[in-house]
Amino acid sequence: MNISVEALKSGVLSGDTRALAKVITLFESARPDHREMANELLSQLLPHSGQSLRLAISGSPGVGKSTFIEAFGEQLLSAGHRLAVLAVDPSSPISGGSILGDRIRMESLSRHPDVFIRPSPAGKMLGGTARRTREAIIACEAAGFDRICVETVGVGQSETLAASMTDLFVLLYLPNSGDDVQGIKRGILELADFVVITKADGALITAANLAKSQIEQALMLTRGTSHYPPQVFTVSSITGEGIAELGEALLATAKDRQGSGFFANKRRQQSLAWFRSEFIDQIVADADRKLADDAEAIRAEVENSTVAPSVAARKLISKILKK
Amino acid sequence: MNISVEALKSGVLSGDTRALAKVITLFESARPDHREMANELLSQLLPHSGQSLRLAISGSPGVGKSTFIEAFGEQLLSAGHRLAVLAVDPSSPISGGSILGDRIRMESLSRHPDVFIRPSPAGKMLGGTARRTREAIIACEAAGFDRICVETVGVGQSETLAASMTDLFVLLYLPNSGDDVQGIKRGILELADFVVITKADGALITAANLAKSQIEQALMLTRGTSHYPPQVFTVSSITGEGIAELGEALLATAKDRQGSGFFANKRRQQSLAWFRSEFIDQIVADADRKLADDAEAIRAEVENSTVAPSVAARKLISKILKK
Repeated sequence: MNISVEALKSGVLSGDTRALAKVITLFESARPDHREMANELLSQLLPHSGQSLRLAISGSPGVGKSTFIEAFGEQLLSAGHRLAVLAVDPSSPISGGSILGDRIRMESLSRHPDVFIRPSPAGKMLGGTARRTREAIIACEAAGFDRICVETVGVGQSETLAASMTDLFVLLYLPNSGDDVQGIKRGILELADFVVITKADGALITAANLAKSQIEQALMLTRGTSHYPPQVFTVSSITGEGIAELGEALLATAKDRQGSGFFANKRRQQSLAWFRSEFIDQIVADADRKLADDAEAIRAEVENSTVAPSVAARKLISKILKK
Repeated sequence: MNISVEALKSGVLSGDTRALAKVITLFESARPDHREMANELLSQLLPHSGQSLRLAISGSPGVGKSTFIEAFGEQLLSAGHRLAVLAVDPSSPISGGSILGDRIRMESLSRHPDVFIRPSPAGKMLGGTARRTREAIIACEAAGFDRICVETVGVGQSETLAASMTDLFVLLYLPNSGDDVQGIKRGILELADFVVITKADGALITAANLAKSQIEQALMLTRGTSHYPPQVFTVSSITGEGIAELGEALLATAKDRQGSGFFANKRRQQSLAWFRSEFIDQIVADADRKLADDAEAIRAEVENSTVAPSVAARKLISKILKK
């Protein structure tokens, strides 16, 4: 990467999306010299970040995330906002389709100068993608994007990761069976601030309304200790029905929780959790690198039951001290 | 602990349950000198372990685990087996009751010379309890116990942990609602080799049979890629109905999977996973101890957003090299 930290920094701060894209590519790199530049940039961009509203947009492939983001995005743009769309799933570009597909699906958005769309890099580990997305949020904010959507199709733990880096979690849901609460992955309803039933138009209107009342009922039963129960909406990206109301509810909720200090506190907790997980990831990665030569033999002993696993771990770790 | 590794070892190998209890207490200790003795003992006991059938017995409090283990245990004892019962939940003694309660509940079992019952120590972390239970299995086997039951009431990830250290997973279930598949924690059915509907007697017989057919139907729909779908039984510990059949099915399944090498392969994978999790736990614990003085200040910087969490982690870790 033949470009200085200084040039990238001033590019990002001036809102240049090409510089922003380069910085995110730098964040994705595993090369030690790139990581050093990335850390330097992060430190310099951090004071210019934090001013956006961060939304997680979650839902299975086909639920209509791109269509929803496009409709919602138009609304944000006409109110003068700048929108960045990032993805958290590993090796799965936005909407689970190809990068080309995304560009096509979000066509009118992607051509807008106040929009930045960045799919996931292919073939990365979930942990690595989480770090890259969290760091990309900081860079987007420093570049003046004040609305961030973090998209996830819900592979593995990706919803939990998306929730861990955003202020509000929006779960998109397509009614399909008449047994709608069953259709929602367990544990996800607990993450949601908004449940949005999509494609509530044409023949699906009845199913959408049924799903809404089933989900609301389930939420009444399970709300438990949650401070804020999720709000349930039906929308149609085709007719536009419900999108404006949802947008207003999202922003009203955000304003409320900003005012009360809820978001600030949530972000502090998120930062500490991120710090802890980075600490563990980096400590273990360092140790794995240092011990690569010794690990294989000890693993074989563990497999053959010639050493107890907890003893083997101590044995392997003690070799670090001798390096 | 005023006793030598040699004395403890020969005590355990001769089948002395008081020596066995002392060894498990040693495994529970966090003191470095105790850990050293524990590791020495583990290494010496390991060659004498591995010969038992390891069963996870899982189910919510009140499902009748103690009663079931007592009935099943009598069956094992009359066939000449020796039974050890361990618990994996943190700070929750066997059956979620008090230690006294367990002794009372499993009264006839606990007085039998071929039975060893050991509840969890109170107030330990889940990770620590997992290690202790895995190590206790090795010690029990070295002491000649050839049937091990690892009990869990299903707090947090404890079912997954119990499954990670056993050959067969038995889920006990009490029908209660007519919507029985909903009542089973998601993800647990995937762990189960046997689903056992308890208290199938008196007024509950109809509910038990309904639950059995509902669960069998759900298993047909969700069995997915599982090699062996779980077997579903109804039992009554009061009338004894179903217990003998279940015991036979358990042993027949075990014999099958021993013969095919399935268990041997499973145990190799379990050992490697245990090794990896011990490696991570110990590396992180070592680092936490070394960095205790520096961590607080960096955590404060992370909370105040004066340093990015990923950069802060690198900064903290780099201090180890200077020690």
